[in-house]
Amino acid sequence: MRQKTERKQRNVHSQLNDSSSQDLLLEAASELMIERGTTDISLSDISIRSGVNAALVRYYFGSKHGLMMALVRKALAPSLLQIDHLIDMKISPKEKMRIHISGIVNTYYTYPYINRLMHQLITEDYEIYGPIIVNEVSAPVSHMQKLVLEEGVSAGIFRRVDPTLVYLQIVGACDQFFHGRIQRKTIFNIDEVDEDYKKKFADLLFDSIMKGLSSK
Amino acid sequence: MRQKTERKQRNVHSQLNDSSSQDLLLEAASELMIERGTTDISLSDISIRSGVNAALVRYYFGSKHGLMMALVRKALAPSLLQIDHLIDMKISPKEKMRIHISGIVNTYYTYPYINRLMHQLITEDYEIYGPIIVNEVSAPVSHMQKLVLEEGVSAGIFRRVDPTLVYLQIVGACDQFFHGRIQRKTIFNIDEVDEDYKKKFADLLFDSIMKGLSSK
Repeated sequence: MRQKTERKQRNVHSQLNDSSSQDLLLEAASELMIERGTTDISLSDISIRSGVNAALVRYYFGSKHGLMMALVRKALAPSLLQIDHLIDMKISPKEKMRIHISGIVNTYYTYPYINRLMHQLITEDYEIYGPIIVNEVSAPVSHMQKLVLEEGVSAGIFRRVDPTLVYLQIVGACDQFFHGRIQRKTIFNIDEVDEDYKKKFADLLFDSIMKGLSSK
Repeated sequence: MRQKTERKQRNVHSQLNDSSSQDLLLEAASELMIERGTTDISLSDISIRSGVNAALVRYYFGSKHGLMMALVRKALAPSLLQIDHLIDMKISPKEKMRIHISGIVNTYYTYPYINRLMHQLITEDYEIYGPIIVNEVSAPVSHMQKLVLEEGVSAGIFRRVDPTLVYLQIVGACDQFFHGRIQRKTIFNIDEVDEDYKKKFADLLFDSIMKGLSSK
């Protein structure tokens, strides 16, 4: 409650501050998706939660889809930056996979709905968001994974596996685990995932994927 | 088109045949979810596609949620029956996992939206569907997986792993792969998954999970 009031006040003082109003809208959308365990939220809910007029969504982002795509970009920016660096880093392919998996887990920890949001954009407006998401997200991620897997095979430490399956197991496990607090509580009886639990999950996933990849 | 006309005719002749009208409604809902790559479909769409009056949904299933739960039960019945048998079968834990994984892949092949549908029911009516889905689905599946994993550890062929992660990797990979034709086409450039491809996917997943579990 205190937080909401603060936001309203901040907003009154910065109605003309575009970048902070945009941030308020993105934060509000993110919070609502996490709380409700679904990406189906309305513009009016986002407007009420953020204290920013719904008309400004059109002004800043063009549409609700535009706002969702901006949220996808914000959520994935650190991971995608990391991917660029990882390819050229002078560390073992195993270490690259550890950093990569831990980066993905971190993304889902903060943005548990990220996978569903991209799927929703593709489902609802394939013509526009299909190519954008492939070019900006899927292609760079799977390109990097493929390079690291090949590096591991050349080094004799990974066996040859289908990169698609590695992608599916990493992303699938993160999505199932982090998306929807209510479902996780219901199905696994795990209520809050804190930093420690997140780290444990990333270690387990890395360990399991590595065992699956091992050439030994 | 021919199919739809046939249905309409069948329906005229069997308006009082409850079980076939129920089947028509469930089939129509299933087809729409697959075609659209989302579980967000309306009663009116289901009614139009099936040729069955929307009011009969309330009569047969109580509500749209009731119809969705009936679809979940229909989709999972073979897998859940298999689970009961598997526990007592006199085969190796590795063979049990192979049958189990292949059963899950088969379910997702026919009902690719099954995971999303359960999540949607839990999100939209937690009080009612949370306990139902835990008791009827999650609890028996994870109980069986836990027993088989323990059996493998006792036999010295599996290492000790967190059963939750095994569950997440199997279900997560199937959900990511089968849910949403459009997304799969967009992200993996895989259009049609036929029987052969399904079998290849099940083999790869089994192989990878087994490598991850292996005590060697």
